[in-house]
Amino acid sequence: MAHINHNFLKLQKNYLFSDIAKKVRAFQEEHPEAHIISLGIGDVTQPLAPAVISAMHQAVDEMAQGNTFRGYGPEQGYSFLQQAIIDHDFKPRGISLDLDEVFINDGAKSDTGNIGDILSLANSIGVTDPIYPVYIDSNVMSGRAGDLLNGKWSNIHYMPCTAGNNFTPAIPQEKIDIIYLCYPNNPTGTVITRAELEKWVDYAMRHNSLIMYDAAYEAYIQDEQTPHSIYEIEDAKQCAIEFHSYSKTAGFTGVRCGYTIVPKALTALSDAGEAIPLNSLWNRRQSTKYNGTSYISQRAAEAIYTPQGQQEIKATIQYYMENACLMRQTLKDIGMDVWGGENAPYIWMKTPQGMDSWQFFHHLLHRTNLVCTPGVGFGPSGEGYVRFTAFCNRENCQEAMNRISNQL
Amino acid sequence: MAHINHNFLKLQKNYLFSDIAKKVRAFQEEHPEAHIISLGIGDVTQPLAPAVISAMHQAVDEMAQGNTFRGYGPEQGYSFLQQAIIDHDFKPRGISLDLDEVFINDGAKSDTGNIGDILSLANSIGVTDPIYPVYIDSNVMSGRAGDLLNGKWSNIHYMPCTAGNNFTPAIPQEKIDIIYLCYPNNPTGTVITRAELEKWVDYAMRHNSLIMYDAAYEAYIQDEQTPHSIYEIEDAKQCAIEFHSYSKTAGFTGVRCGYTIVPKALTALSDAGEAIPLNSLWNRRQSTKYNGTSYISQRAAEAIYTPQGQQEIKATIQYYMENACLMRQTLKDIGMDVWGGENAPYIWMKTPQGMDSWQFFHHLLHRTNLVCTPGVGFGPSGEGYVRFTAFCNRENCQEAMNRISNQL
Repeated sequence: MAHINHNFLKLQKNYLFSDIAKKVRAFQEEHPEAHIISLGIGDVTQPLAPAVISAMHQAVDEMAQGNTFRGYGPEQGYSFLQQAIIDHDFKPRGISLDLDEVFINDGAKSDTGNIGDILSLANSIGVTDPIYPVYIDSNVMSGRAGDLLNGKWSNIHYMPCTAGNNFTPAIPQEKIDIIYLCYPNNPTGTVITRAELEKWVDYAMRHNSLIMYDAAYEAYIQDEQTPHSIYEIEDAKQCAIEFHSYSKTAGFTGVRCGYTIVPKALTALSDAGEAIPLNSLWNRRQSTKYNGTSYISQRAAEAIYTPQGQQEIKATIQYYMENACLMRQTLKDIGMDVWGGENAPYIWMKTPQGMDSWQFFHHLLHRTNLVCTPGVGFGPSGEGYVRFTAFCNRENCQEAMNRISNQL
Repeated sequence: MAHINHNFLKLQKNYLFSDIAKKVRAFQEEHPEAHIISLGIGDVTQPLAPAVISAMHQAVDEMAQGNTFRGYGPEQGYSFLQQAIIDHDFKPRGISLDLDEVFINDGAKSDTGNIGDILSLANSIGVTDPIYPVYIDSNVMSGRAGDLLNGKWSNIHYMPCTAGNNFTPAIPQEKIDIIYLCYPNNPTGTVITRAELEKWVDYAMRHNSLIMYDAAYEAYIQDEQTPHSIYEIEDAKQCAIEFHSYSKTAGFTGVRCGYTIVPKALTALSDAGEAIPLNSLWNRRQSTKYNGTSYISQRAAEAIYTPQGQQEIKATIQYYMENACLMRQTLKDIGMDVWGGENAPYIWMKTPQGMDSWQFFHHLLHRTNLVCTPGVGFGPSGEGYVRFTAFCNRENCQEAMNRISNQL
């Protein structure tokens, strides 16, 4: 008699974005004339860079000829892309990596979820709060989260990030085995200073903890001081896995490509207390349960590292950041407290008049026909905040800000 | 202190195909003049169908324009592809499916590995032997396989398929929770009759077992009687998940697209003895840990269902099957015992003169500079057999068969 993984029954019924979609659909049905603009889900709107388009056409043409056709690629990705990543995303920051420390994936969501495969179910988990829901949900599914009590999972240590601590999580007093950090942060749009990141690496080294560092938004960093990679910090290769995605860097949410760095110096303990390299475990996991990323998507990713590609993707990032700037200013002008939006495509706003996150969501939808994401959907400390994304097109962004200025 | 998943340490060190690659590399270094032809790994060689190429170019062009650009698709896949699958792969066989029973994936390997996420670690496992290694290795990783004793995993029930039983596994006497079946079979190239498949569905219904049915090679079936889908058997929707891949159907090993059917009538038990629909669990798993298949790959897959696409992919399948026919005949002519190759692109051969699988692998490599896959790499009952694939190009196939005729 086949049995299910009972941990799935612990998951909360509704997923944040499907919840939002349902409420928006219901509103649209009641108000068919309303022109709803979504500043909710963090999906890109601008077309792919011409350099990327051209590389994809070329890759497709290669697949049409016997002498250039490609079948199975390496499960870890093609070296042409691994090398381009090392040369452009790491070497200029003084970080050296070997090809076999770079694992090409189909986007950060798969790897941040699947990475748990190689780790003990007994590890304790630490998360900043609010947080991208995948980190927690994937741990709930595997049984690592414990039980849900008063909105929190019993085996997860929550590190509140609120206006009260300027969104800087306190370094825990206790030992936590695995800590998820995401900077620039989704959902708050805030960044971490080098000094704060050093404290985390120091903590992890002292406790043999493992940091899961999600750098999916690093391309949005505008200032010179903010670290783009945790490996800019000494010793981080001994305590951190880093996740990257081209979804936001180059508009690849429909193309599906990213990468994960698992340094060879990184170990975790076996039951016998032996230090086991995580690189070889992840390599084995991917060889067994993954068959590599689409060749066409890998060529698309390679193209963003050409001079033309770099220029084009930076122009699109700038476009989104100008949206963010307009949004920040408009929200401030009407007296709102906002964070983020300076080194990240997200703006985090305190809800006015003591409304909770969902109350403001409905208030905004009814008054302005705009959609935001209720902060509480990202965790208990997100209550009383909402997230706006800058990934809209300019016209919608301007229209949305006009409505906020005039109708909210 | 972070700990690893200790089950990974139970895995055997070497993976079959990397093992083979190493031995072939070593041989090539010793014999730089040798023209080695691989009939080993089951990877396609023929270019993509023109209908597919054209659809991919069009999809790439859509991504270049703001008004046709696509960001995140549904995690479950686009309905245009789900509908094409239902209309072409199932309706003509009298099988009705809803759109939300079809999950688009990036190839069958990911889903056959990841499906374990939704199932209890306490389930017992049954496999035909020999078998595609992913089924077992993914269960070893999660801890479902038990311990390795004398070449077999303690919690896995092996069902030998040898010449002795004409490669027809006996229906088990005991209750097994999850059973993996793959037809047309990788590695033996044999098929299952409708009557035998009915026995499996009957077994699963009696014991509340779950069948994982891997139909990755169904497009190679040539005769009229052999079932293409387990859902051709009554009640199978209540006891089976079915995996499909375009890798072999349309040469997509580098494109990455396939699909998994999880019928809504299919349930497994919770700890409380309640029947839980697996469709909703898998949907939740995919929504949380997967971000959908590349849009371009999904349009590529859609194109194979057009009249032109069908004609083109069938011509390529025919090409490979003519290779298989030539290989079968050549091997028979020199007195070998062979199976498969009639409804599948694989030929399974008994090694001559009492050689074991690896002995024959080396013998073949040294005498003819050809590469086969040692049967024992697929499980204990594969000992004394080797696998040849018909996915080579014609020239290599003919040259290889000449060598076998003249030099073996």
